[in-house]
Amino acid sequence: MHLPAELLFRLREIFPIDALATGEAERIAYSYDNSRRQALPDAVVFPTEHAQVEALVQACRAHEVPVIARGRGSNTTGATVPVAGGVVVSFERMNRILRIDPDNRLAVVEPGVLNGDLQQALAAHGFFWPPDPSSAPWCSIGGNLACNSAGPRTVKYGSPRENTLGLRAVAGSGEGFRCGTYTSKGATGYDLTRLLIGSEGTLALITEATLKLTPKPSAVRTLRATYRDVGAAARAVARIMAQPVTPCALEFIDDAALKLAHDHGGDRVPLAGAMLMIEVDGEPATLPSAVDAVSAAARGDGLEELRVAETAEETRALWAARKALSPAQRTISPHKINEDVVVPVSHLPALVDGIRLLSAKHDVLIVSFGHAGNGNLHVNLLPRDDAERERAHACLADVFALVLSLEGTLSGEHGIGMVKREFMPLALEPATLELMRNVKAAFDPDGILNPGKLLP
Amino acid sequence: MHLPAELLFRLREIFPIDALATGEAERIAYSYDNSRRQALPDAVVFPTEHAQVEALVQACRAHEVPVIARGRGSNTTGATVPVAGGVVVSFERMNRILRIDPDNRLAVVEPGVLNGDLQQALAAHGFFWPPDPSSAPWCSIGGNLACNSAGPRTVKYGSPRENTLGLRAVAGSGEGFRCGTYTSKGATGYDLTRLLIGSEGTLALITEATLKLTPKPSAVRTLRATYRDVGAAARAVARIMAQPVTPCALEFIDDAALKLAHDHGGDRVPLAGAMLMIEVDGEPATLPSAVDAVSAAARGDGLEELRVAETAEETRALWAARKALSPAQRTISPHKINEDVVVPVSHLPALVDGIRLLSAKHDVLIVSFGHAGNGNLHVNLLPRDDAERERAHACLADVFALVLSLEGTLSGEHGIGMVKREFMPLALEPATLELMRNVKAAFDPDGILNPGKLLP
Ligand SMILES: Cc1cc2nc3c(=O)[nH]c(=O)nc-3n(C[C@H](O)[C@H](O)[C@H](O)COP(=O)(O)OP(=O)(O)OC[C@H]3O[C@@H](n4cnc5c(N)ncnc54)[C@H](O)[C@@H]3O)c2cc1C
Ligand SMILES: Cc1cc2nc3c(=O)[nH]c(=O)nc-3n(C[C@H](O)[C@H](O)[C@H](O)COP(=O)(O)OP(=O)(O)OC[C@H]3O[C@@H](n4cnc5c(N)ncnc54)[C@H](O)[C@@H]3O)c2cc1C
Repeated sequence: MHLPAELLFRLREIFPIDALATGEAERIAYSYDNSRRQALPDAVVFPTEHAQVEALVQACRAHEVPVIARGRGSNTTGATVPVAGGVVVSFERMNRILRIDPDNRLAVVEPGVLNGDLQQALAAHGFFWPPDPSSAPWCSIGGNLACNSAGPRTVKYGSPRENTLGLRAVAGSGEGFRCGTYTSKGATGYDLTRLLIGSEGTLALITEATLKLTPKPSAVRTLRATYRDVGAAARAVARIMAQPVTPCALEFIDDAALKLAHDHGGDRVPLAGAMLMIEVDGEPATLPSAVDAVSAAARGDGLEELRVAETAEETRALWAARKALSPAQRTISPHKINEDVVVPVSHLPALVDGIRLLSAKHDVLIVSFGHAGNGNLHVNLLPRDDAERERAHACLADVFALVLSLEGTLSGEHGIGMVKREFMPLALEPATLELMRNVKAAFDPDGILNPGKLLP
Repeated sequence: MHLPAELLFRLREIFPIDALATGEAERIAYSYDNSRRQALPDAVVFPTEHAQVEALVQACRAHEVPVIARGRGSNTTGATVPVAGGVVVSFERMNRILRIDPDNRLAVVEPGVLNGDLQQALAAHGFFWPPDPSSAPWCSIGGNLACNSAGPRTVKYGSPRENTLGLRAVAGSGEGFRCGTYTSKGATGYDLTRLLIGSEGTLALITEATLKLTPKPSAVRTLRATYRDVGAAARAVARIMAQPVTPCALEFIDDAALKLAHDHGGDRVPLAGAMLMIEVDGEPATLPSAVDAVSAAARGDGLEELRVAETAEETRALWAARKALSPAQRTISPHKINEDVVVPVSHLPALVDGIRLLSAKHDVLIVSFGHAGNGNLHVNLLPRDDAERERAHACLADVFALVLSLEGTLSGEHGIGMVKREFMPLALEPATLELMRNVKAAFDPDGILNPGKLLP
């Protein structure tokens, strides 16, 4: 317990007794996230309103105590681990959907609303919010915004940056503010909304978000294409993206990942050199021509089989391989290193070939799959013992160098957190990093918000 | 001529003789824009490469001399008027399209490329860049980005913020930097790209942009609906936006504007209480169902006539009223005040009703039309003499108050510049403005970039 007594006293004034935790058990519960990194906070608070968050940040700033925003701790980069101690702000109780406004295609929510809960509430109105991380049932909108989290649908519908209209937040200075609009466009001053999106809790704590909604397409068709090798599949991805019908999912799975899923998930999972899962959506009358267009693009040298699901049951079967992947990986390596690099789509063939070579060079099993329509590949290094773990870390640096040489960047959707911080100077010029540091100081002059994250 | 001799000497080193103008005629030519405001710069430079822009800003910073970026001066807010003198940087010679990359759905351009020229070059590849101001043939991509300029297509395809991947720029500090990605998503640090978009040349000078391209839909259908009154039309807009088929244009024209266009453009322009122009696009097979969906939504109390164009000639006839508007207004008032306020779509009926009352209260002719699908209304006050001009200014303050009371904001696409600066405190809280000032200082510590604009 390292909080100054005066600060603790102030926290007790701000928060009711059940909304401030200083016991060790609770502090441990909020010490880690999905990165398997860990550090104990000095206290955990559970605000239920904006004013508490303002008072909290002002109090912590007065004592130069770190403040770490937390949604549901599902991030993979250590972004919520309180490496310098301080107060974790769990937004789990600020979980009200304040307004669903179909006429204006917007919803206003508190940050603790779970993505899955929001989607369910929106579906009743015929709408959805495009960002769809596979963690949707147990991750929060605040976390989604702070990481710019995405998923399969992003290829067609965009990430949080394209789907957020405005925010309410508290800067590191302790000042509450609103930014953005309730309208689908605006040109009134600097775009602070997008600046906060992807800032991983280092600039401001988000206390309310106005989200842009999209009408739910009334029908979906799913296709599965298997290829002789990863290169052939990657070239098909580039062809699909170069024609006018944008799929609402375009997922890539390499041979190593397929084999793993097959071992785990059984014969429903095909064995092949690589596989694409493709979905198109729209009004029912429009789907046949959409299926034709993406099928034509999916065909080409190296295609082995192209299947279109005709029923919901068949669709589930087609997705079986993709779903079997996560559990399958865990059986091999508890020390999985999960990166989510991204390159321009036409460089995917070079990326998958290059990763293959690096896997051989460092003698580490790598399985790759991901949101190929965005060029976003989840590169999973699966070391089985300590020696392999060391080799995996050396390999990782080579993977990033490869990605950057292909006009790509470090992260497509998981963010930087603590684990990729050290690689930021590879991806960004010193002048860009310097501007980011200036922006950080503009919002958080004393550097109390989520220290040790994002910026090197 | 007020530039320090030392700075002038340095400018002569940086720029060839034909790329630095200090003569009065040229300075006058770059002293105004479409706002009809005017102020003489001390010099005008015409860079052809990034390095010159870096050297220029460094030199001007050393002498604390203002630097004003200029595309083609078509903005309506005085955003390029050098109110404090200094050096105007005209990007008209940095007008190369550096790369068109259909596989990756991106183009890399210099800022001086005209929007219309880019669209033409992209069309050959089956793509377009969504932002489509009606000034497209004579405005630059740099200006489009700096103002977050938009047009009819924005309702479906978004503004520059949704359609730009990365930038190269020179901050007010004199440092050149790159930000953003060549990929369609990314989560690597703060989003400086969107921060520069809409910043009106006050944070950094853009020297290169990586734009996100969209495949050109292969077919379009145009509809025209006339209504008994503006309220009925505004309610139809809200109905159209609440159903799943998003039109690629949804333009509103009020009765006063229609009458003006009719007087000017003849009988092709209908007389009615209000009119909507609606376009849907997509693959040919998908259009009949799209037309049905928006037609159903356009129908309702107050609809007078709904026409669907069957030929290109008919389409042109349907758009005649919209096109006749700009020239028509000029015949009435040389002192037109053209605002582009925006409100949530469902508040459009209240906005048009409210504007009607304000027009009567202040006895000033107001014609309204605009991008109704985004809730973006061009409110044109048309004073005919000095007395009316004074009343128009009083009326304007009431218009903004009305807009803000309806959850709207000052500008949908034209930006703030010098003419709306004074109204910023009505739209933004002091804390938000303070953060914007901090961000300004983060990029431009000495405040040399476009002083007197955007921030009050
Ligand atoms: C099984 C699994 C699958 C996943 N799949 C995906 C996927 O498909 N795509 C994807 O992009 N990610 C995925 N993730 C990662 C993770 O779920 C996302 O990053 C998610 O958005 C994090 O949400 P959270 O509520 O758990 O946030 P947390 O992990 O609690 O926090 C993440 C970051 O957001 C900040 N933050 C949280 N709330 C706020 C707030 N109110 N204000 C300011 N900052 C805040 C935190 O400080 C931290 O920096 C997956 C994770 C798991 C475990
Ligand atoms: C007839 C007419 C119709 C119009 N229709 C529309 C419309 O439909 N929609 C709409 O949104 N606007 C419209 N406009 C306004 C105007 O055309 C847009 O704002 C346009 O984007 C300005 O481009 P420009 O090249 O002329 O820029 P300028 O007017 O030269 O500059 C505009 C702003 O951008 C900054 N800037 C320019 N280049 C750079 C750069 N390289 N780096 C940094 N800052 C830079 C300037 O400093 C200034 O702040 C219209 C104007 C006219 C005259």
